Amino acid sequence: MVRAQEMARYVQSGALDAGITGHDWVVETGADVDELAELVYAKQRLARVRWVLAVPEDSAIREPCNLEGKTIATEVVQLTRQYLARFGVNARVEFSWGATEVKVPQLADAIVEVTETGSSLRANRLRIVDTVLESATVFIMNRSSASDAWKREKAENLILMLKGAIDAASKVGLLLNVRRDDLAAVLQVLPALKNPTISNLSDPDWVAVNTIIEEAVVRQLLPKLKAAKAQGIVEYPLNKIVL
Amino acid sequence: MVRAQEMARYVQSGALDAGITGHDWVVETGADVDELAELVYAKQRLARVRWVLAVPEDSAIREPCNLEGKTIATEVVQLTRQYLARFGVNARVEFSWGATEVKVPQLADAIVEVTETGSSLRANRLRIVDTVLESATVFIMNRSSASDAWKREKAENLILMLKGAIDAASKVGLLLNVRRDDLAAVLQVLPALKNPTISNLSDPDWVAVNTIIEEAVVRQLLPKLKAAKAQGIVEYPLNKIVL
Amino acid sequence: MVRAQEMARYVQSGALDAGITGHDWVVETGADVDELAELVYAKQRLARVRWVLAVPEDSAIREPCNLEGKTIATEVVQLTRQYLARFGVNARVEFSWGATEVKVPQLADAIVEVTETGSSLRANRLRIVDTVLESATVFIMNRSSASDAWKREKAENLILMLKGAIDAASKVGLLLNVRRDDLAAVLQVLPALKNPTISNLSDPDWVAVNTIIEEAVVRQLLPKLKAAKAQGIVEYPLNKIVL
Amino acid sequence: MVRAQEMARYVQSGALDAGITGHDWVVETGADVDELAELVYAKQRLARVRWVLAVPEDSAIREPCNLEGKTIATEVVQLTRQYLARFGVNARVEFSWGATEVKVPQLADAIVEVTETGSSLRANRLRIVDTVLESATVFIMNRSSASDAWKREKAENLILMLKGAIDAASKVGLLLNVRRDDLAAVLQVLPALKNPTISNLSDPDWVAVNTIIEEAVVRQLLPKLKAAKAQGIVEYPLNKIVL
Amino acid sequence: MVRAQEMARYVQSGALDAGITGHDWVVETGADVDELAELVYAKQRLARVRWVLAVPEDSAIREPCNLEGKTIATEVVQLTRQYLARFGVNARVEFSWGATEVKVPQLADAIVEVTETGSSLRANRLRIVDTVLESATVFIMNRSSASDAWKREKAENLILMLKGAIDAASKVGLLLNVRRDDLAAVLQVLPALKNPTISNLSDPDWVAVNTIIEEAVVRQLLPKLKAAKAQGIVEYPLNKIVL
Amino acid sequence: MVRAQEMARYVQSGALDAGITGHDWVVETGADVDELAELVYAKQRLARVRWVLAVPEDSAIREPCNLEGKTIATEVVQLTRQYLARFGVNARVEFSWGATEVKVPQLADAIVEVTETGSSLRANRLRIVDTVLESATVFIMNRSSASDAWKREKAENLILMLKGAIDAASKVGLLLNVRRDDLAAVLQVLPALKNPTISNLSDPDWVAVNTIIEEAVVRQLLPKLKAAKAQGIVEYPLNKIVL
Repeated sequence: MVRAQEMARYVQSGALDAGITGHDWVVETGADVDELAELVYAKQRLARVRWVLAVPEDSAIREPCNLEGKTIATEVVQLTRQYLARFGVNARVEFSWGATEVKVPQLADAIVEVTETGSSLRANRLRIVDTVLESATVFIMNRSSASDAWKREKAENLILMLKGAIDAASKVGLLLNVRRDDLAAVLQVLPALKNPTISNLSDPDWVAVNTIIEEAVVRQLLPKLKAAKAQGIVEYPLNKIVL
Repeated sequence: MVRAQEMARYVQSGALDAGITGHDWVVETGADVDELAELVYAKQRLARVRWVLAVPEDSAIREPCNLEGKTIATEVVQLTRQYLARFGVNARVEFSWGATEVKVPQLADAIVEVTETGSSLRANRLRIVDTVLESATVFIMNRSSASDAWKREKAENLILMLKGAIDAASKVGLLLNVRRDDLAAVLQVLPALKNPTISNLSDPDWVAVNTIIEEAVVRQLLPKLKAAKAQGIVEYPLNKIVL
Repeated sequence: MVRAQEMARYVQSGALDAGITGHDWVVETGADVDELAELVYAKQRLARVRWVLAVPEDSAIREPCNLEGKTIATEVVQLTRQYLARFGVNARVEFSWGATEVKVPQLADAIVEVTETGSSLRANRLRIVDTVLESATVFIMNRSSASDAWKREKAENLILMLKGAIDAASKVGLLLNVRRDDLAAVLQVLPALKNPTISNLSDPDWVAVNTIIEEAVVRQLLPKLKAAKAQGIVEYPLNKIVL
Repeated sequence: MVRAQEMARYVQSGALDAGITGHDWVVETGADVDELAELVYAKQRLARVRWVLAVPEDSAIREPCNLEGKTIATEVVQLTRQYLARFGVNARVEFSWGATEVKVPQLADAIVEVTETGSSLRANRLRIVDTVLESATVFIMNRSSASDAWKREKAENLILMLKGAIDAASKVGLLLNVRRDDLAAVLQVLPALKNPTISNLSDPDWVAVNTIIEEAVVRQLLPKLKAAKAQGIVEYPLNKIVL
Repeated sequence: MVRAQEMARYVQSGALDAGITGHDWVVETGADVDELAELVYAKQRLARVRWVLAVPEDSAIREPCNLEGKTIATEVVQLTRQYLARFGVNARVEFSWGATEVKVPQLADAIVEVTETGSSLRANRLRIVDTVLESATVFIMNRSSASDAWKREKAENLILMLKGAIDAASKVGLLLNVRRDDLAAVLQVLPALKNPTISNLSDPDWVAVNTIIEEAVVRQLLPKLKAAKAQGIVEYPLNKIVL
Repeated sequence: MVRAQEMARYVQSGALDAGITGHDWVVETGADVDELAELVYAKQRLARVRWVLAVPEDSAIREPCNLEGKTIATEVVQLTRQYLARFGVNARVEFSWGATEVKVPQLADAIVEVTETGSSLRANRLRIVDTVLESATVFIMNRSSASDAWKREKAENLILMLKGAIDAASKVGLLLNVRRDDLAAVLQVLPALKNPTISNLSDPDWVAVNTIIEEAVVRQLLPKLKAAKAQGIVEYPLNKIVL
């Protein structure tokens, strides 16, 4: 197993043709690889992580330029140096093995740390000054492998599979029967994103409706579908979807 | 997390708008709450539990009136007192922390204990004298919250969801193809509860049948469906159903 | 619970009407039972195990007749004796409690051991001389029970269920919509084994295709189906299939 | 196994001759038993627990008499009632299944809860109003068994053993050699509690000192003993001590 | 690691110079090895195990000769055959993989099984007919290695160590001070097995007593020693003893 | 908890007065702290670890100067740079997150890795070129704290305790009785390191010998002591020793 931190180096060197890692580590290691796709849950607030510059709540540091001459502890030394360079700031950047939050103010004036919701930072009484980098999970490929047609196609198929599984993880299938007369009312309740599949039943007065929806909205939909006279409503699990 | 024993008190006090607990604990705590729905598996022998009055196999106690002046150990002191009051019996009711079965005859003459099948009581050589209370899992709501239209609707939706999931837990979907000529024979095999969904296939001689059945009967149905010339029989899992 | 090694004896004796064990143990114990069915994954390289005669890489033993006067360690003493008898070879066969591979050359000249891929033998620097017996999981039945019509039918139904679940374990359902004009192209992509179910949709220009495929080929199929203009492709899990 | 809460009842009934439980549960259950000995670590701040009356930090309740007409949640209903009676206060006492701290102020105005250091109460922003009962672990005996000479002697022996093991748990043996000329200086360093054992060595100029000390003071003693010219200092573990 | 069942074969073959196994497996495998020492706890009821012939409680089999023509299930096939030969009895002996107790009466008429206390046999409603072999843990040595002086000495040293540790496992050290005038009374209380070590203290009126005793008798001794005016009684753990 | 890698920084900054870490991390982080003591097992082959420069077995790199222009992967970037500087070699040093062994030859030409016995390196077919640094566990102290008399004394006491416990870990106490006539023979057998404690027994013909020895030599000593007529030999465990 290769660590996320080192995957980009393995792929750049050709030891591996492709890999999955964070965009942050591609930048941190300066690896020259091809980022073919982002692998993120659509419309999800946890989709991305941020590396942020944080300081103690009562610190006088309010913006990047206040860092001049200060010490910053972080696991991403290169990312932090590039960030400081953008502002022309000179500061000491120290590599930190885990648990960076507890190092301020005694070992460092500021930290650059990864966060999803900021709650761990708040629990440590830290204040976010700025976002250094937004990052998501990416599928990366060795540049030479990426220009090999056969390998590229295999990689694209794999990405299609992975995205299909990611998309399916938060969705479910919904199957129901409804009289033709009530179909319009039922369809009005269903999310408009994609047309549901409507199939004829033996009994010409009825149709079956099959659709894919976010699992999170089932709770709102079920009572409305029942009110719209849908019958035999069945929610079933999905493995993958490619809409 | 709130214990089942205390949920009714939390809901009565308004600390929570609604909760799930046993009907027994609603009665034991004397909480004034609205029992909106029972959440039980249909046609299941484990659907309900019973609080029973039990005595050692060789005890002289044969009916409630024999309890006069005796000692009863139980976790449900109020339930037991209400039960005794019904018969005008005076007896000492002692609260018991777990493992009530081992307390007779040395610490108590009788116990009031919960049981599903009675096997634990039999293993302890106890005889059931009477049923004190039958109880099922219930969805309870604070009376004031229950008369708030918006909260009440949210509660009803949640109950619909929970019942949909409970109903689905013991059921599966069954999908099969059959020639129109053999459809009647296949339908005769399927349980009569709900009409299955019959849909037209491209080949006008064939139809597809989609139905929901108890998982427990699949074993009996599969050979019969095959004998009735069903083809491509597929059993698939369900998340929720609202028939 | 009954061990695989002893199941055939239990079934022969009538202590059990039927059981599941390896064909190897039926032969080793010499049990007179009815092998009603093999329970194996179709087209799977792990479907069967082999009991092989193995010797140290540098042993002079090249064929069964070289075993004359030698010592063989094995868990299957009877199987090994029957094998030697076939070649008219006299050798000492010693029962071995587990870990037979480490017993050559100090405690034995050869071993008879079970293997799927041979990798454990290679890791112990052993060379396979011959296959003594191929074995698969079998459903066995007491001969007298097997001639009882009612018991036989229950056994056959159980076999149908088990095979249905085994077949489903490596397969998934695939559902997609396609314009009638593109149907031929889509069908050409799908495996030819079984005709997929094609159903009419409300929109007369479209049909839905429902089919069962090996999960292992989904990776190859998804991009091709997309290229053939299939839409709303959904992969869903299966419990059992009887095609 | 018998729960601490119910041990006193078992011993009172004669189901057990003797047992170990908390003094609090003897009082709560009103059991008439003989408390033969307290089993506590000498000079230990954790030796005893306290049941305290506690209220939310901002509660108006300042003393027991403020409880008139209030609701108190507790696991020790009888203890609490006896406490209230002492002050002539009428209040509703409700049995609480665990986690009493979270019940104020919504389900109760005050609680009676057990505490060692009070830290859990502070963490829940509760204020201690009064101590209801101090309690320690006690060895209890059935009154009739306690007057049986043979049983009583066995119980006294057991108590001696238990106290010996409890006393040993926090102590260690210390063995050292010292010249007779330096003995006085070494003895001055050792705790004065018990005279250490001083034995003659073959070399008439030297003696050996063997003593039992609290493990917690070894850290302070070792450097001082070395400074006082003790040699060959050895700390060894103990199982039991009866000084 | 070598299994107990196969150790004797490894030692006989010279693959190992020496090993520890049960005497039973030496006999069962017919291995020609030197049993240098038994490794058993002195005066311990668990010191030895027995292989016994057992039958269902209601079996007509009362003595070995009743086994003629019967089937016996056992893990020790050779031991059982040798036992039957002693009585000139012909019976079928079947190797059994574990859980032999459950095989009677359906798969066998009798079993030969290992037991310490017989409780597992009783729990399975089996009756012991006869003891087939008593067995203890033994230290075995390859005959050729045992006649090599250097190897033999190392083995004897190892046996001394092992016995020293086994003897120490159930014993403890006891150290106490006593006035010379009370010494006789104290010594009378101590077990007579080995003379305790009595050493002079600086104070000529006092002596120290150091002795090794069974941990199981500490409970009886402590009160008596105290009564005999022993002081500063300390029980300490032991690693090994060679008395 | 502070990681070994960062302890020296915490101590240098004064966040902690003292700590325990490896000498290697003191050097790597360049922390200016006082190394008060090494905490190592005397005469133990595992006492120290080595950071070594290693290359693939078949690499052309034979000495440090061959590294010119090469890439080196390591967790100790500064240590490695200082080492290269000593030889005036220019090479690229890359930080490696764990599992450095697997990075040659694809991601690096050489590695600097920690090793105790070299076995992990050999298992990865690596050859050691040179030792970069030897390191042991050290007790470090903040320079300012170390010159505070009170803190310094507490630190020295703690070191005495730690060394006492480390020394005791591999040692045991040995107690035996011997006739005065045989004392010389017994003393000759005991290691000469420290004079054992010889005490007079009540019986003037006997003495008791108490000594501390390495547990590893007990096996050799026991038979010799017995041969020299020592009696009542007892081995007992130690917690700490300060000889």
